[in-house]
This record gives sequence, structure tokens and C-alpha cells, in this order.
Amino acid sequence: MTLQELIDHPCAWFVDHACGEVAISSRIRLARNVAGYPFPSRAEPVQLREIRHNVLRTLSQLDLFDQGWVSETDEVSARDRMLLFERSLMSREHMENEESGAIGVSRDEQDVVMVNEEDHLRLQVVRPGLSLESAWEEMQTLDASMEEHVDYAFSSKYGYLTCCPSNTGTGLRAGVMLHLPGLALLDEVRPVMRGLAKMGLAVRGPGGEGSDADGFLYQVSNQVTLGRSEQDIIGELHQVVDELVTHEYNARLRLEEVRPNGLRDKVGRAAGILQNAWELSSKEALDLLAMVRLGLAMDLLAVEEEHVVERLMIEVRPAHLQKLAGKELNPGERDRFRALRVRSKLAELRKGPKL
Amino acid sequence: MTLQELIDHPCAWFVDHACGEVAISSRIRLARNVAGYPFPSRAEPVQLREIRHNVLRTLSQLDLFDQGWVSETDEVSARDRMLLFERSLMSREHMENEESGAIGVSRDEQDVVMVNEEDHLRLQVVRPGLSLESAWEEMQTLDASMEEHVDYAFSSKYGYLTCCPSNTGTGLRAGVMLHLPGLALLDEVRPVMRGLAKMGLAVRGPGGEGSDADGFLYQVSNQVTLGRSEQDIIGELHQVVDELVTHEYNARLRLEEVRPNGLRDKVGRAAGILQNAWELSSKEALDLLAMVRLGLAMDLLAVEEEHVVERLMIEVRPAHLQKLAGKELNPGERDRFRALRVRSKLAELRKGPKL
Repeated sequence: MTLQELIDHPCAWFVDHACGEVAISSRIRLARNVAGYPFPSRAEPVQLREIRHNVLRTLSQLDLFDQGWVSETDEVSARDRMLLFERSLMSREHMENEESGAIGVSRDEQDVVMVNEEDHLRLQVVRPGLSLESAWEEMQTLDASMEEHVDYAFSSKYGYLTCCPSNTGTGLRAGVMLHLPGLALLDEVRPVMRGLAKMGLAVRGPGGEGSDADGFLYQVSNQVTLGRSEQDIIGELHQVVDELVTHEYNARLRLEEVRPNGLRDKVGRAAGILQNAWELSSKEALDLLAMVRLGLAMDLLAVEEEHVVERLMIEVRPAHLQKLAGKELNPGERDRFRALRVRSKLAELRKGPKL
Repeated sequence: MTLQELIDHPCAWFVDHACGEVAISSRIRLARNVAGYPFPSRAEPVQLREIRHNVLRTLSQLDLFDQGWVSETDEVSARDRMLLFERSLMSREHMENEESGAIGVSRDEQDVVMVNEEDHLRLQVVRPGLSLESAWEEMQTLDASMEEHVDYAFSSKYGYLTCCPSNTGTGLRAGVMLHLPGLALLDEVRPVMRGLAKMGLAVRGPGGEGSDADGFLYQVSNQVTLGRSEQDIIGELHQVVDELVTHEYNARLRLEEVRPNGLRDKVGRAAGILQNAWELSSKEALDLLAMVRLGLAMDLLAVEEEHVVERLMIEVRPAHLQKLAGKELNPGERDRFRALRVRSKLAELRKGPKL
């Protein structure tokens, strides 16, 4: 599988499946390091290259990646790395640091191995919808197959050793990406975030730490990895997300009940602007698409092509857009090309039964 | 003619004629006072009523008003006075002060006599497009027919005497309402205004002094009435407006040339929002309708019903809207009813040849 094939395939975990309306995807990530080597931040270049070499050999022995796409990071252009980041296949750190890194992605984009990121190994499994358990099962398989070939750094006292102490222990981070336009419209995301923080959970934009919640997409994940079992971490997160989903649906019902015109106004304007604008920034496009997605979920809008909005929510990002255009675009050109793309894709968007 | 008939007739000077695209209407106003009486601000109520009685008798003798609508101001409800103000048939002062006033409007809304406004008499003639000369001709006829019955206060030294010295002399104010979205989009209205101020001309929003230029509608009028002939005042204003019209057309060409996408973006979004919003404030509706009017003029948009946008630019104002609804509406209800009205009226708005 070439990078181009990977790129042409539109983001399986977001687009191809019957995503839950609120819980978009579940992600499990493990931090692992190779025994006998310093962590990447302290390792010599020659050591990093040795690790990379060994992991790449391992990946080539695993069907999952052999049929997918594997590459050294420095062979991927900066724009393609950004595209992988936009698609959640690469972390921001991995995108920005091209030295001695490598990446392996399975054909369906659901399994990812990053080499020499903050840790020697970052394993990631993403599944559509709220499916932490099945992602965790898949991850156990992936982790076990890696461990057959790689000697993990492990302490019987602390568990898996990681560069940053916050990952030590299970090395597990479990997260769910949620679409919360209802709570956002009611200005209730902030209190919810505060409540989750008290429970040791983090709420962030989809790009990871410090990223904004463009498109009302939020990622809820555990903060603590030490002293708790993987099952406990995942079980608790699942329960919290279940509650958040109910909370979001209730928010939508309240919007419909208390501010029906305000809701229709927001959704209608978003559709009207997306269908008629000639210049759209990435943030505006995502925010408006999120409103349209809400409108579709609430039968205020209807559209022929399934998942056209989810696909656009990926495609309007800068690197994806330039890939579609087949050339580099400056920000102004991007805004125009983005508007053109959205206009043509949403031409069939029409009023739904409740509008 | 009843007030209802007058109201139902949709604002002849704005809507019914083939208005010039930029110069919407021309207005001539004369300030006159009745000899032997103090100005309204200093007159006793009994004197004001005497003047009103005499002027009403005069109006009843003139075919122009006998076939139109004549009323004492205090017999018109506050909302209807506001409606007359929104339609430029009443000044703000006349709308707010209901004591001892009266108003006469010709059937076609082009001739108006206000009684006991700032002066005993304010005569107004409005014509569609840039037609100051024909409006002035009509005004001379109106002025002469009034003078046959009313003894005007006149000084051979100062000319017609008026309450405010700025009106003394000819008592003439000539104004043209202009639609300048091109200059506004290029941020060039302010410098133009400064230039006009130096020439002794005022630029204001359509509601008169202190009003905002909602909908990019500006009224250019003379400031000085003393020491110059009526022909001079009108001739100079005509020339300046001619230049402004050219200036506006040039601005539109420049927009098309320099920022074609920006222009299409503004026009497209305006159309998209107006066709899909469920809540619209008066100012937003006027501003967006102005963009649509620009789009129609530049073949970016097309619509079946002629003048539907001009009609909406009157109908979306608060008093007009409540008249259409047939009942009093609070601001939130108005915003929703306004959006409903605009949505239904602009359902047929579509992309034009150049979009």
C-alpha cells in the first residue's frame, strides 16, 4: 500500500463506518520503550536508528502492517506528515520531528505504530463509535505481536517505563472523540470539562493537548496510567462517555424545546453559508459543518450522500485540501478552494422533514 | 384614500418605479411658516391649532391631497406614525410629537405636507431615481398652490423665515438617497463623506440626522440654504450625485476586478443567510438585503419578482413588519417574523449568470 493509496482512502475510522452520532471514535494508545536503550530524548542518533531499524523489521513481519503502509518519517514530506496528523494517524510531536522516526499504518487505518516519538514506541488503535473494549482487545493483540519481537522496558514495581512519568504504569491512554454541538450551543461544555477534570479525565480538542475544539469535537481521555488496571481505566471512561452522550442528547432535546427557532436559525445559516460562501477558513468550515451535522442528526436537514459531512470535516483541513488540489496553496487560495469544495459537495443538501 | 390604503400601497418612490440602481430617490423639502404666528416651538397650543385648522382647510381644497390622505397627527397611532417615518413620509420630529400636528400625503406618496413640525409647514416632494429637477418643478407647483391660501412669513432681506437659521433663505433642502455597497465594501464611504462635508453637503443614513447607514443607504443633501438660488443648490447637488454614482460603479468594477471572490463571498453568504435564517434583526436584514441588491445589479444573483428586494428593504422595518403581522410583536417575535417573511419572499432567489 502506498502513501497515496492511504491518503486517497477517506479516513476509515471517521467516515466509512456508521459512526455513533455523538461518540465518533474510540482510541487506545500504549507507550512502550525498548529495554537497554535510553528514552528518545536522551538517546544518541545511532541508537535511535538502531531501534527504528529493528522495529521496521518487526513491522515487515506482521501482516497487519505489511499490507498497510510503513515508512521512515524523514521520507514523508512535511505536508504529508501534516495530513497524517490531521487524520489522527500521527501525533503533533511525531509530525514535527522527522529525525529517526518511523510510522506503520494498517490498511484500514485502525492500527498505528509510531517509532521514536516521545517514547520508542507508541501503539494506537482507533475504532469508530464508542468501542473502547473492542479497541482494547485489538490493542492487546497488537501489543502481544510487537512484544514477540521487541524486548519492552518493564519494571515489576512501576510497570511499563515511559519517558514522561504520566504514562508510566499501564502506559495506556484511552480516549473518545465526541461531537458536542448541543452542549456547546447551551454553553455547558465548560462546566462539564471542570467536572471531568475532577475525575482525572482530560477534555481536549481533537488535535490533542492545547488544540481548540473546532467543529465542536472534543476528546475525553484518562490522565492517570499508574496504579490502575487497563480494564478499570477503560471501564470508567466508557461509563463517563455514556453519560456524556446522554447529556448531549438531552441538550439537543432542550434546544429543540426551549429555543427551536434559535436552533433552526443556527443550522439553517450554517447550511446557507456553506452552500454559498466563496471563502472559508478552516475553523469556520469545521464549525459550520458541525452545525450541519447536528441539523442532519435532528432531521432539520437531509442529504443524499451518506457521510458527506464527516468526509468534509476531514477534507477541509489544510494538508488534505492541498492534497486534493494537487499543489501547494497559500492560505487565501486554500480558503477559496475549501469554499469551492464545500459548495460542490453540499449542493444537494436540502431542508429536512423538521425544517 | 384611507391610511390603510396608503399603507398597503408599497412605497411608490422606492418600489414601483424603475429606480436607478445607485440613486434610489430624490427629495426636495421646503420649510415655510405662516406670517403673524410665532414658530411652533414658541407658539401657544391655540395658535398651533389655528394654523393646523387653516392648513387642513387648504389641503382639502387641493385635488392632490383631497384624493390622497390627510389627518391630524394625534389621530394616527404611534405605530402608524412610525410606519410613515420608516417610509420617509414623516420626519422623526413629526413622528414623535403628536400635538397639534397634521399631515397630508398625495395618492402616489410623492407629495407630502407636514403641519407644525419644526416649522409651521414642511413641504416634501420625493421622486424615484436622480430626478431633482422634476422634483423641484413639482415642488414649485405645490408651493405655489399652498401660497394661494397661506400667507408665508417672508423677509426681503433673509428670504423665507424659518425656526432654525440653517433653513432660512430658500428654506430648501434637496437630498438624494444613494445605495453605495461598492464604496462601503472598499471602505471608501468615510473619505467620500469628508470630501462632501467640505463642499457644504451632508451625508447621512436614510432616517435623517444621526441615523446609521443600515443597508448601505446614504442620503446626500445640502446644508446651506441662505444666499444661494434654488437652481444653484439643486444643480450642484445633481453634479455631485452624478459623480458619486460613477464612483460607486467604479468601486463595483474594482471589486469585481481586484476581489472577485470576496465580492461573490459577501453576496453569496447574504443570499444564503436570508434564505435560511430563522431570526433576523432589522439591521442585519437591511445589510444583507443590500448585498443581495448589489448581487442582482451585478448579475451574480437573479430573481423572478421585480423589486422584491426593494420592497423587503421597506417591509423588514419594525412598524411595517407589525402591520404585516396584523398585531404588536416584541423584538424577538419581530426577528422571527422578519426571517419568515424574508425566507418566503426570497425562496426564488437563485444564482445569476456570473455566479
